[in-house]
Amino acid sequence: MTAAVKVDIARLSAELEELAGFTDSPAPSVTRILFTATDRAAREFFKQCCRETGLLIREDAVGNIFGRWVGSDPQASAVGTGSHTDAIPNSGRYDGTVGVFGGLEAIRALRAAGHQPRRSIELLMFTAEEPTRYGIGCLGSRLLSGTLSPAAATALRDGSGTSLDEARAECGFRGDLATVALPAGYYETFVELHIEQGPLLEKEGLAIGIVEAIAAPASMRVVFHGQGGHAGTVMMPDRRDALLGAAELALAVDRAARATGSPSTVGTVGVMQPFPGAINSIPSRCTIEIDVRDTALEPRDAAVEEILSGARAIAERRGLTVGIQMLNADPPATCGTAVVEAVARASAQLGIPSRRMVSRAYHDSLFMARVCPTGMIFIPCRDGVSHRPDEYSSPEEIRRGVEVLALTLAELSE
Amino acid sequence: MTAAVKVDIARLSAELEELAGFTDSPAPSVTRILFTATDRAAREFFKQCCRETGLLIREDAVGNIFGRWVGSDPQASAVGTGSHTDAIPNSGRYDGTVGVFGGLEAIRALRAAGHQPRRSIELLMFTAEEPTRYGIGCLGSRLLSGTLSPAAATALRDGSGTSLDEARAECGFRGDLATVALPAGYYETFVELHIEQGPLLEKEGLAIGIVEAIAAPASMRVVFHGQGGHAGTVMMPDRRDALLGAAELALAVDRAARATGSPSTVGTVGVMQPFPGAINSIPSRCTIEIDVRDTALEPRDAAVEEILSGARAIAERRGLTVGIQMLNADPPATCGTAVVEAVARASAQLGIPSRRMVSRAYHDSLFMARVCPTGMIFIPCRDGVSHRPDEYSSPEEIRRGVEVLALTLAELSE
Repeated sequence: MTAAVKVDIARLSAELEELAGFTDSPAPSVTRILFTATDRAAREFFKQCCRETGLLIREDAVGNIFGRWVGSDPQASAVGTGSHTDAIPNSGRYDGTVGVFGGLEAIRALRAAGHQPRRSIELLMFTAEEPTRYGIGCLGSRLLSGTLSPAAATALRDGSGTSLDEARAECGFRGDLATVALPAGYYETFVELHIEQGPLLEKEGLAIGIVEAIAAPASMRVVFHGQGGHAGTVMMPDRRDALLGAAELALAVDRAARATGSPSTVGTVGVMQPFPGAINSIPSRCTIEIDVRDTALEPRDAAVEEILSGARAIAERRGLTVGIQMLNADPPATCGTAVVEAVARASAQLGIPSRRMVSRAYHDSLFMARVCPTGMIFIPCRDGVSHRPDEYSSPEEIRRGVEVLALTLAELSE
Repeated sequence: MTAAVKVDIARLSAELEELAGFTDSPAPSVTRILFTATDRAAREFFKQCCRETGLLIREDAVGNIFGRWVGSDPQASAVGTGSHTDAIPNSGRYDGTVGVFGGLEAIRALRAAGHQPRRSIELLMFTAEEPTRYGIGCLGSRLLSGTLSPAAATALRDGSGTSLDEARAECGFRGDLATVALPAGYYETFVELHIEQGPLLEKEGLAIGIVEAIAAPASMRVVFHGQGGHAGTVMMPDRRDALLGAAELALAVDRAARATGSPSTVGTVGVMQPFPGAINSIPSRCTIEIDVRDTALEPRDAAVEEILSGARAIAERRGLTVGIQMLNADPPATCGTAVVEAVARASAQLGIPSRRMVSRAYHDSLFMARVCPTGMIFIPCRDGVSHRPDEYSSPEEIRRGVEVLALTLAELSE
């Protein structure tokens, strides 16, 4: 089989190039946010490519897209692969997309090589892996895996107050969210191809990372409330400035992440929004969003605890009130041995140098791991950079990733 | 004259009520930003009211609106009055508007009382007293007074990159900005009616504040540049997080304002914008906007110096680069004796209790003071609150302010 699997990297590169054109920010940056006109156009492009490949298309009530290559035993549990095409503001063109269109290319290469799968192979484009619009990552795979309840999803509102139900209805997704969760036995295994989003593979000159575990993310939104007023007329002793509380907490997040004793703990404030947000107004309110991760649960939760008690102490000291919303606090995932070993065999068979590793970014695979044995294939990206316009993996790096994915799918679908 | 001047507070209140309906945020808050459709609609409303009063309307190249009641000696320098109608996001309905529509009501009251001015009385609606869109306050009066050069104004860009020239052209203001500056001798005096935006008058039970000086504002925009990246994959020691620099500086602004030894120094960070602004991205860039004021120049400039050197030290220590833009650093204004004394006489004549005071907020009068002897009339506002939806002055408070303004204009136009 090995020799026969031929990846058409020119075709795949052209598709990734075309996909990058669906953006709400100027090239080379990419901005593709859930259920915007741009996201919808990208979805149509993806479905068109699936149709041309002869895949059977299905969309669920939250907009997850499934393209199925029906196996010789259509009743057998399927093998899933895929990733996401949404992109945070001003980011790059490879995060997620390589797993979606690379998955499609792997299927095309297997077909061209005459492979006939026994199990169906199903390609997924997950809805909103990025938390941009609703503040919660992996929206599609959380619902697929039953991790997020339909009621909790229905309660979601974006920054302008639009509910998830309104937004999806506008795109024609009107079904009951309770129908999204996959029935038991739907997938036998799942494997996701993704750029590493870290520097390890590049540093070590390796082409493939075989993921054994996915780090545990926790994220929260903290809102300080103080007293607004005119920046010129309220004297300093009379102030209760919400932004100062948030600024102090941002520094505390950094300290907490460095103080767990685990070098793997990271803590980030990526969002800070003072209100009303005018140069001559004392902020009456300030929202910050915090992301804390570790590959181990204990140090991560220690950092989270430190941050939350810090927020309360800051509010107390500054005469502010504080509201804390845990957006998520998921446990880490361990990958399925069958998938990990299949990826390792595929890499070895192709003579591609690889290593086993941990994913520090989280992915839809974190939730697919609750559905079935799941694994991930990482490829290098330049300088480990991601979520930036200069995010880059070379055609050659992508080609090798797709080859490994194709062989893995071939084995898992036997 | 006194007995005859009769302010129609019901009519004025109705106009202020109608004006408050021109807003881009839900009632009771008001958001009216330069050259938006809402701002343009409010301008049309104002001009319509001026026309109904028989004023001669003129608009200059930056959209300042002038409504002239021509005096019996049309060649004599005019007496100016007026304020602004733009409103920062989610603010209130009295800041500025009381001086514009109150000025109109004062003119109507004088006409109704049979007053015939020798000097023309000219009512102004200044363009963009608030810095919301172009980051610089008093745009219209800066250009009128020659404080801002036409070249500097032409270089202004808003947050989405639209130049002032593009924005004003869209509203039909296509003339050369060099024509905005007033010729010498255009105004004999200028007087502005305004809510206090501070608690003093209310605390002391006084109806009128006679402003003798206007505090000196300085504002700056500081941008920290670091290294972006994925919040999950870049370990803490490898980070150069731009938001942390900005957070540290926000706390330093607060400290610097408290440390000048002058109880009048205030320092505020009202704007903080991390980029790309996603929960799972390390901010590569963070912009903060800072406002520092004092009634005296020395402590204010000491605080500014402390903040700027602090910004550089923070950048150095955190491996960031920093860009500093002074948006303005204007000297304080002293009010013209002739105007101050006319306001004092008007208050006394009406038997309205008043005090002399300093304006801690800045106003278009700060720049009109460079054109001609200038004064301000303050009225109380509840709890000293401004720039908030609950900003409030009662009809009775407004009525007394307009009466004092009318008598002041009568004397100054003799």
